[in-house]
Amino acid sequence: MTQTLASFDTLLARYAELLVRTGVNLQPGGKVRVTAPVEATALARLVARAAYRAGATDVRVVYDDPHLALTLFEEGSDEAVGFVPEWAAREREAMVADGYASIAIVGEDPALLSGVDPTRIATRSRLMAQAMRRVSEATGAFAVNWTVAAMATPAWAARVYPDLPTEDAVARLWQDIFSVTRADLPDPVAAWAEHTARLERLTDYLNRQQYAALHLSSELGTDLTVGLAQNHVWQGGAETAQNGVRAVPNLPTDEVFTAPHRDRVDGWAVASKPLSARGQLIEGIRVRFEAGRVAEFSAQSGEATLRQLIETDDGAARLGEVALVPASAPVARTAALFFNTLFDENAASHIALGRCYPTNVQGGTDPAVLDAAGGNAGSLIHVDWMIGTPRTDVDGITQTGERVPLMRAGEWVLSLD
Amino acid sequence: MTQTLASFDTLLARYAELLVRTGVNLQPGGKVRVTAPVEATALARLVARAAYRAGATDVRVVYDDPHLALTLFEEGSDEAVGFVPEWAAREREAMVADGYASIAIVGEDPALLSGVDPTRIATRSRLMAQAMRRVSEATGAFAVNWTVAAMATPAWAARVYPDLPTEDAVARLWQDIFSVTRADLPDPVAAWAEHTARLERLTDYLNRQQYAALHLSSELGTDLTVGLAQNHVWQGGAETAQNGVRAVPNLPTDEVFTAPHRDRVDGWAVASKPLSARGQLIEGIRVRFEAGRVAEFSAQSGEATLRQLIETDDGAARLGEVALVPASAPVARTAALFFNTLFDENAASHIALGRCYPTNVQGGTDPAVLDAAGGNAGSLIHVDWMIGTPRTDVDGITQTGERVPLMRAGEWVLSLD
Repeated sequence: MTQTLASFDTLLARYAELLVRTGVNLQPGGKVRVTAPVEATALARLVARAAYRAGATDVRVVYDDPHLALTLFEEGSDEAVGFVPEWAAREREAMVADGYASIAIVGEDPALLSGVDPTRIATRSRLMAQAMRRVSEATGAFAVNWTVAAMATPAWAARVYPDLPTEDAVARLWQDIFSVTRADLPDPVAAWAEHTARLERLTDYLNRQQYAALHLSSELGTDLTVGLAQNHVWQGGAETAQNGVRAVPNLPTDEVFTAPHRDRVDGWAVASKPLSARGQLIEGIRVRFEAGRVAEFSAQSGEATLRQLIETDDGAARLGEVALVPASAPVARTAALFFNTLFDENAASHIALGRCYPTNVQGGTDPAVLDAAGGNAGSLIHVDWMIGTPRTDVDGITQTGERVPLMRAGEWVLSLD
Repeated sequence: MTQTLASFDTLLARYAELLVRTGVNLQPGGKVRVTAPVEATALARLVARAAYRAGATDVRVVYDDPHLALTLFEEGSDEAVGFVPEWAAREREAMVADGYASIAIVGEDPALLSGVDPTRIATRSRLMAQAMRRVSEATGAFAVNWTVAAMATPAWAARVYPDLPTEDAVARLWQDIFSVTRADLPDPVAAWAEHTARLERLTDYLNRQQYAALHLSSELGTDLTVGLAQNHVWQGGAETAQNGVRAVPNLPTDEVFTAPHRDRVDGWAVASKPLSARGQLIEGIRVRFEAGRVAEFSAQSGEATLRQLIETDDGAARLGEVALVPASAPVARTAALFFNTLFDENAASHIALGRCYPTNVQGGTDPAVLDAAGGNAGSLIHVDWMIGTPRTDVDGITQTGERVPLMRAGEWVLSLD
């Protein structure tokens, strides 16, 4: 028992160090903002310790308690749900301007808000997104180095492993987290350097091809052509932020992703996993695109939430990301369904409704360039959902219309190593 | 077992409602900021619920984790300890300007920082106080309705009841909290209305007397004459904020307090309880005042921290408050030493080093009026410490030099009821 605890503490400290060194690659004298679930005190304190040891000038931890949102939706007046003060994003904006790196630790209950009227959630989500627009834009353009990683909260663990007692579910989910983030290896930072170098070879290759489109098909009915933005850039693994710091925005990450052309997406996309969005679960999503836009959609459950998402604005009915992930990725090998985008999106190829990343188009941080290239810049949302399966095929379609096999039965068929 | 839990939950919900209804007396459409220890999720959520039910337009909960300060002091560079960003107080200032009420829930480990170099703490405390100056001034002038109340964190409970297992210590401390705040009565809000009316009769009486000074003496060696500011105002119990809302700034509260004259304090003040300040314990304080200013001081332990406090600025070496509390007050009856000002100051008469409350002088929110009356306006600190005992005598000294007995053997000798 003592040994198990000691071992967990060691892993947790190593994980905290990984978030600081590989995740945001904090520089001496750097500043960092950490957001964490209110249950994450142990991890947050270790992250702060690692950051100060790396020479941080400032570490600001903000604890998040999603139950307060639940309380608002359950008990608050319409006025309260619709109230977002003018100054709500000011501190975040000041931190972006001051060059604060950002470590976001996620672990929320994926179905916490399942009993809440989706209209109330949509109203508030829209107002929050509007208030946070400048911060989101800066984050999307990778103005500062940031990373997203997870912790095993009891509520989340209980959803992932509903048949286990909560304590065991938490232990099991931590095991998954340590495993897929390589925190259980003797030198996680070195392992990540190797992993991101591998992803870089892949994105370098894809960037040289400049495919006109991708075609994805699966046994579930996906038959989707995704036109790509002109001068699109594939990204994956590590990224260099505008402040020059090379960081890893997601831990884990096994995807390579780029920007679709907002008007050139056609065919059926069928979800391969449930999607947790806005505290609600959406299952069995089927969407048909026509000239880039959602033409019809349905879901077996959570359809009202899906509708609210798609109807947010015009850009929300178009794609902002297409990402390829092999079926053998570490997250996929755990065989668990995490109901958490950070994890599930790294277990399956996926697409995202809503705004694209400006960094996925050459020169795309200039809005005019991004627009001319066909990027989907204008939406308040960016919601990934999974369509890849172990039987998914992906082709690249060249500018002259040839089809090049990229993935077969869920695995890359390129040999780059 | 089930019944015990249900009963605790009921008490906690009643306590949350008391903070909202009596503590800040939240008005329909009002907004409120809640700060709470990171362990206080259950209470914070209940406070949010009670606030929305009272018609709140906005409830903002900020969780505080003092261990992050410990990590900073242990691991941070001097640069990090000395770094307080320019925008640190901006959000708080915006909330004061927007009329947010404030509920502060305290429960920190009173000796968390006992191993830290007091100079590091003093450096940071001064910078934080400077950054928060406008907020402190607004709070001190009761610009908005605010209240301070407690929760039983494990770390605090273990200090108060070191001989009990932590779980029992927490349960016992909660029992104390519910008892001294009357949350265990069938109608706490009504009980508080009665209690604050009683304190109001006392302050009305004292305000009519306009004593020139008080004299306090105890068996421990206190022999202190505290000249009072001209046109001083005794306060206690409920107060009307500048926004017109009548609230109770401290739960519990059994003190009546007013502003000393900054140049007219003479003699010895000897502490009757240890003082927890800045995460460190200061024991056995003895201070001699001369013409208002600290002339000599010593402490059996924590003297370095006491020195840092007194040397903060000129006003820190003078008094900003004198408060009278009967030895039979509810907190005193628990016979516990809480190492927490909110509790210990309501168990014994006390004085405070540092700035006075402008509301303790007629028209004192005008700085010129406050200064002319002899108020001690200029300090960054306000630190209460306890000198009252069950054998303390207090006299009022009239403008013509007569001595009027106010307390004998720690109890009021006025009969007002």
